[in-house]
Amino acid sequence: MAHRAGRHFLQIPGPSPVPERVLRAMDMQVIDHRGPEFGELGARVLEKLKGVFKTECPVIVFPASGTGAWEAALVNVLSPGDKVLMYETGQFATLWDELANRIGIVPEFIGGDWRHGVDPEKIAARLREDTDHEIKAVCCVHNETSTGVTSRIANVRKAIDSTGHPALFMVDTISGLGSADYRHDEWGVDVTITGSQKGLMLPPGLSFNCVSKKALDAHENSGFQKSYWDWGPMLGNNASGFFPYTPATNLLYGLEEALKIILDEEGLENIFVRHQRHAKATRIAVEAWGLETLCQVEEEHSPVLTAVVVPDGHDADHVRKIIHDKFDMSLGTGLGKVKGKVFRIGHLGDINDLTLLGALSGVEMGLELAGVPITKGGVQAAMDYLAKTA
Amino acid sequence: MAHRAGRHFLQIPGPSPVPERVLRAMDMQVIDHRGPEFGELGARVLEKLKGVFKTECPVIVFPASGTGAWEAALVNVLSPGDKVLMYETGQFATLWDELANRIGIVPEFIGGDWRHGVDPEKIAARLREDTDHEIKAVCCVHNETSTGVTSRIANVRKAIDSTGHPALFMVDTISGLGSADYRHDEWGVDVTITGSQKGLMLPPGLSFNCVSKKALDAHENSGFQKSYWDWGPMLGNNASGFFPYTPATNLLYGLEEALKIILDEEGLENIFVRHQRHAKATRIAVEAWGLETLCQVEEEHSPVLTAVVVPDGHDADHVRKIIHDKFDMSLGTGLGKVKGKVFRIGHLGDINDLTLLGALSGVEMGLELAGVPITKGGVQAAMDYLAKTA
Repeated sequence: MAHRAGRHFLQIPGPSPVPERVLRAMDMQVIDHRGPEFGELGARVLEKLKGVFKTECPVIVFPASGTGAWEAALVNVLSPGDKVLMYETGQFATLWDELANRIGIVPEFIGGDWRHGVDPEKIAARLREDTDHEIKAVCCVHNETSTGVTSRIANVRKAIDSTGHPALFMVDTISGLGSADYRHDEWGVDVTITGSQKGLMLPPGLSFNCVSKKALDAHENSGFQKSYWDWGPMLGNNASGFFPYTPATNLLYGLEEALKIILDEEGLENIFVRHQRHAKATRIAVEAWGLETLCQVEEEHSPVLTAVVVPDGHDADHVRKIIHDKFDMSLGTGLGKVKGKVFRIGHLGDINDLTLLGALSGVEMGLELAGVPITKGGVQAAMDYLAKTA
Repeated sequence: MAHRAGRHFLQIPGPSPVPERVLRAMDMQVIDHRGPEFGELGARVLEKLKGVFKTECPVIVFPASGTGAWEAALVNVLSPGDKVLMYETGQFATLWDELANRIGIVPEFIGGDWRHGVDPEKIAARLREDTDHEIKAVCCVHNETSTGVTSRIANVRKAIDSTGHPALFMVDTISGLGSADYRHDEWGVDVTITGSQKGLMLPPGLSFNCVSKKALDAHENSGFQKSYWDWGPMLGNNASGFFPYTPATNLLYGLEEALKIILDEEGLENIFVRHQRHAKATRIAVEAWGLETLCQVEEEHSPVLTAVVVPDGHDADHVRKIIHDKFDMSLGTGLGKVKGKVFRIGHLGDINDLTLLGALSGVEMGLELAGVPITKGGVQAAMDYLAKTA
């Protein structure tokens, strides 16, 4: 492949760009995962991680993709044949539902149009009907990576509470954590699921379960036979900083460096503001182009990504290909039901105003080259907003 | 922690030292795992990997530890309640047996003394008794990391064949592959299990199943409900170079670089010779010290590591601690039944004669400082052998 000058713009909704110093932190020899230096590293990281989840609960780290942490969440608190309530916010909620089916859980999937977040009232209504408490858990995706719609988890919690139903509350914030406001304890989440390659700004390869006391109690009674995903041996080792099997050492080096950036230097709240501002600038550009976002609720626009609908008769993947080939930028494809109909602009992780404007410029030029009818000026409008709020 | 001058000697039997250029290859931005560049990388790596297994069969890559690949091997070809035959070569065989029990498989565990490899005749005898073919698989550890004993897999294959029993043959060579002679196809192995952090010279975080046609047929009839570990979606994607869920991108960069070193530059057969020679030099030192190795069979000494027995009344972990604190070297601890009785010297992966002699010097000085009665001259004897064979 010929050399392409300049750096690639990785504007998919994760994996997100990794800060150079995080890459450098990982670019170190492996150490003995049973030696004293590792134990100190593990203990530090496991403790500090809690800050990102806003929790006092333990966090479990798996050498696995986010998909693995989905499976871990289910098999640790449920038993084969258990019913769970899931909600179709988009492709990732759909994949989680399919996973549950494959491993012998019986999910009930509340249908959605992929343009709205979880409707708390629908959850409450279903739980109220379930007077025998057959539903063991409510499972929601916080930031739906396929649509750019963020569900209001606090409201879902309130809806569950309003029914007095004892179901566990499990939330996938794989693409949300560290970018979008999230509060494991305050929102009463029992299992939070996330991965390393989004707001945590690491390469993929680690995933996480943050688990409440109620989830730990459910773990005691879980009927799934499990080994790799079992929280028990993980928690048994947590205090010492060691892991029951060989951890992904170098990603943990990177995680420690990323946590330093997130919690000690930029600060979580500042990171949330930055993401909201970039998301807003992106929507301003989209509106100026005369296009629409997939998300249809103002309060539910994702701070992580924006899914842009291309007009009928145009192929979003054709636009993406032109942008990839001409301008060396990766955008997210439309997944599942919205294949070809949308492309997704990731604006998460280690990016700044000029990265975003470079990315939006690529989108504007690509739309034009692909013959999509737009009004020019999206980048200009985004610049005006970013300059005003700089 | 105060700075310790010079580099740490990582002489545990894995994770092994990572070549600097492999670390550098990983020290690169993440790319879009759904983009064309990734597809080419994935396809290249999946094809080239076969050379290390000496196979034409597909290889499946999991973002997981070796423990995960153990579980994957079992749940893809077996059904809950299936009987398998396992063999107690040491701690890792014991852990695999425990894992099988935890997930609902019924292993029969042939006892061993941790000083010998698998006895092919015991396998054959048990299979001959099993006239109803209730045993669905024979599971052996090739290079037992806890003992430094390498089982003769070709002989086990012959023993199975001599009985005409249809059981699958599953082999863990997590610490063997890329260091010890191994031949998936020639030895008729159905599932080979390995990990990234040993002979492949990568950090931990990837693991592998190499699967025969017979194993794929068994996969069709497997009764385990599975998702993350399921070979089906993995193999469905293999040809394209993509993965069903987010792969550990940067470890794949490293894997490509490591495969280049192993297959194109040093060459597998040269690597095997180097490992055998270093293992021999280590045994010469141990013998000169007047100590014994845990392994008691000349043909079964591991090329990867040497487990050294400390005399009664001495604690191997005390020796290890002195060596760690005084000489900045990590050695492997005694695991399970041999805790405190042995320490393990790893001599695998990216090491050369002088690394080994440095390591053996640390062991000789540490034994002396710990008050273990030895005859000096182990390092001298190893030097004489290495110089003669240089």
